[in-house]
Amino acid sequence: MNTIRSDFSIAPLPFPDALAAACLQQFQTTPPLVHCLTNEVVQSFTANVLLALGAFPAMVVEAEEAAQFSTIANSLLINIGTLHHSRAESMLAAIQAANQSATPWVLDPVAVGGLTYRTDFAHQLLSLKPAAIRGNASEIMALSGLATMGRGVDSVDSSVSALPAARQLALQVQTVVAVTGEVDYITDGLRDFAVTGGDKLMTRVVGTGCALSAVVAAFCALEGDRLHHVATACRVMSQVGGQVSQQVAGPGSFIPAFLDGLYQLKISDLL
Amino acid sequence: MNTIRSDFSIAPLPFPDALAAACLQQFQTTPPLVHCLTNEVVQSFTANVLLALGAFPAMVVEAEEAAQFSTIANSLLINIGTLHHSRAESMLAAIQAANQSATPWVLDPVAVGGLTYRTDFAHQLLSLKPAAIRGNASEIMALSGLATMGRGVDSVDSSVSALPAARQLALQVQTVVAVTGEVDYITDGLRDFAVTGGDKLMTRVVGTGCALSAVVAAFCALEGDRLHHVATACRVMSQVGGQVSQQVAGPGSFIPAFLDGLYQLKISDLL
Amino acid sequence: MNTIRSDFSIAPLPFPDALAAACLQQFQTTPPLVHCLTNEVVQSFTANVLLALGAFPAMVVEAEEAAQFSTIANSLLINIGTLHHSRAESMLAAIQAANQSATPWVLDPVAVGGLTYRTDFAHQLLSLKPAAIRGNASEIMALSGLATMGRGVDSVDSSVSALPAARQLALQVQTVVAVTGEVDYITDGLRDFAVTGGDKLMTRVVGTGCALSAVVAAFCALEGDRLHHVATACRVMSQVGGQVSQQVAGPGSFIPAFLDGLYQLKISDLL
Repeated sequence: MNTIRSDFSIAPLPFPDALAAACLQQFQTTPPLVHCLTNEVVQSFTANVLLALGAFPAMVVEAEEAAQFSTIANSLLINIGTLHHSRAESMLAAIQAANQSATPWVLDPVAVGGLTYRTDFAHQLLSLKPAAIRGNASEIMALSGLATMGRGVDSVDSSVSALPAARQLALQVQTVVAVTGEVDYITDGLRDFAVTGGDKLMTRVVGTGCALSAVVAAFCALEGDRLHHVATACRVMSQVGGQVSQQVAGPGSFIPAFLDGLYQLKISDLL
Repeated sequence: MNTIRSDFSIAPLPFPDALAAACLQQFQTTPPLVHCLTNEVVQSFTANVLLALGAFPAMVVEAEEAAQFSTIANSLLINIGTLHHSRAESMLAAIQAANQSATPWVLDPVAVGGLTYRTDFAHQLLSLKPAAIRGNASEIMALSGLATMGRGVDSVDSSVSALPAARQLALQVQTVVAVTGEVDYITDGLRDFAVTGGDKLMTRVVGTGCALSAVVAAFCALEGDRLHHVATACRVMSQVGGQVSQQVAGPGSFIPAFLDGLYQLKISDLL
Repeated sequence: MNTIRSDFSIAPLPFPDALAAACLQQFQTTPPLVHCLTNEVVQSFTANVLLALGAFPAMVVEAEEAAQFSTIANSLLINIGTLHHSRAESMLAAIQAANQSATPWVLDPVAVGGLTYRTDFAHQLLSLKPAAIRGNASEIMALSGLATMGRGVDSVDSSVSALPAARQLALQVQTVVAVTGEVDYITDGLRDFAVTGGDKLMTRVVGTGCALSAVVAAFCALEGDRLHHVATACRVMSQVGGQVSQQVAGPGSFIPAFLDGLYQLKISDLL
């Protein structure tokens, strides 16, 4: 069904600076309240990233409250990195309430593929209409049909190799998919954008990918073209991360510098 | 019953430097062991704040152990930010053991008001004699009777607008209430103090309020006038936070600088 | 059975630089994937420490997945700092799978001794053949038979006073024991090494001991003499921690500087 857009030879266009700047302006004008059901390891960093950008993070975890809060929040993040049965129930309750109140929700399918429990859960979530999905190449390939076509699914897959899977997944689920890596690709299955930037140092800091998914969720709260909003989330994180990586001595000093960079980011910095 | 002290026109006195200095000296002489049952997002920052001040944090979470540890610890913090059923049981077990062994415990009623489960739980806890309660204006108003008198309960309430609620809550529960914000007010319902300082930047760092509640719990371990001890906890955090905010580039570099500032704090710095 | 090596007068030899350098080279050549079932407070710092050293941390917590992942990982860390029933089940499942697939696992018996639930659990784990145990003096004494011989078990015990307990525990369990403090002692019951370095400032940063246990687990993934590998883990953390402590203003700035130091560590720095 998706033969044309699976063609590797059609290279995605760079995401235009002017669109990114317009989206960031919209974001800063109406900073969203983001409900984060995310993994245990990255909660603090995730909250600090959202706060640095001017958004309002909140983690409400008991099922009945998570559902109640999803109707109040502007968007919802579901990250399955440290999934367990009790939290999975809360996630389902939160997603159902989000869908009933038209709160967009975003899936980060951490480590989907090799591990059975989370892989089954993530596939179940696909039917619940995520507004966007953000993952690395291996995760996006594992979530899509292409991933079962005999390719090795591991973290050394490059993001471009997962672009056909991302496009197919976006069409299947009717969502926006961001497959991130050295280059980030953002697609709704019919249109794609590429975002460059970032730095390998970011892979030595826990939670940079998870925090990006939270920022994607935050941008999904905006009215307008979701493909542009998700691409802007990627752009913001890649640009600040890339710049900061040049200025620091290692992954330890990256963390405070990155948060400062997000806090200081101006719309004109994207132009 | 509380008509006089609800009068807005009686402005609280600034908390005297000499009292703060004496309390800090007492604290440094007998650094407390603080049992923290706090939310998932802020556990690491909370522990680092207590360690920087010279106190000893410990998080013991299974109900039977939490109860056992409450009899050993010098004080107990209960923060309901990421409350769930299993942790709520541990909190109740810890509080009951704390009360039986005269270990003071402190309540941080995170986000009480809009969310039903935690609001019911927090009201239940009020009957279990907290030594102190620390919250923002909206939380304190939601916990007190005044909060139901038609006012909007949200995070834009200023702390002074919650002072009548704080006084009433303190009298009702026979506790010390700290309602914190641009100015912190600390009251036992009959006496109040004001603590200035801090900086808006602190609202862009996750856990500064939660960590303050842990420091309040630490100071509640001291013998003497609890109102003074709670006010000193607020003073220490406001002073160091305010100073550090002037020296840093954003919320990222605030975190290490704040911990360093707490670590370096001398009694003479309060005078 | 252990009378000779319990003799206090036989001082352990310093761990040779050349052995440490060779182990670190082996580590950097084959950076391990480390499954961490660790406490809630230190997960982020633990992951960042492993990433800074070039290893790959992963936290997979639901019992069935934890078991599945233990067969894939190169080693497993079990830290009982915030033990609760559900996580204890996951730990047992992970350990059993690890043992079936010859994945080495390491025990950090946080706060064992005074608290009944975790103490019983830790003793149960001893029969499941940990590759190494890393604890402070009080914890190692509590785990061993010597600990019940009337000595006070508290955190002021020096590591040298726990050396006989460490040797006995190592022989009993047929494992490597690292008892860490101002000096670290690493023993398999028949041979011991001493590692100096570190700094008192590290006791004011939450998770330095827990992160050391994760690094011990990472080094236990290596082929060869496990005693040397565990000693190298201690050496790396002590050396970087000691150097960094001289350069920072307090525990806040220690954290980024420590991670940077681990990231920048060269084999020649150990010689």
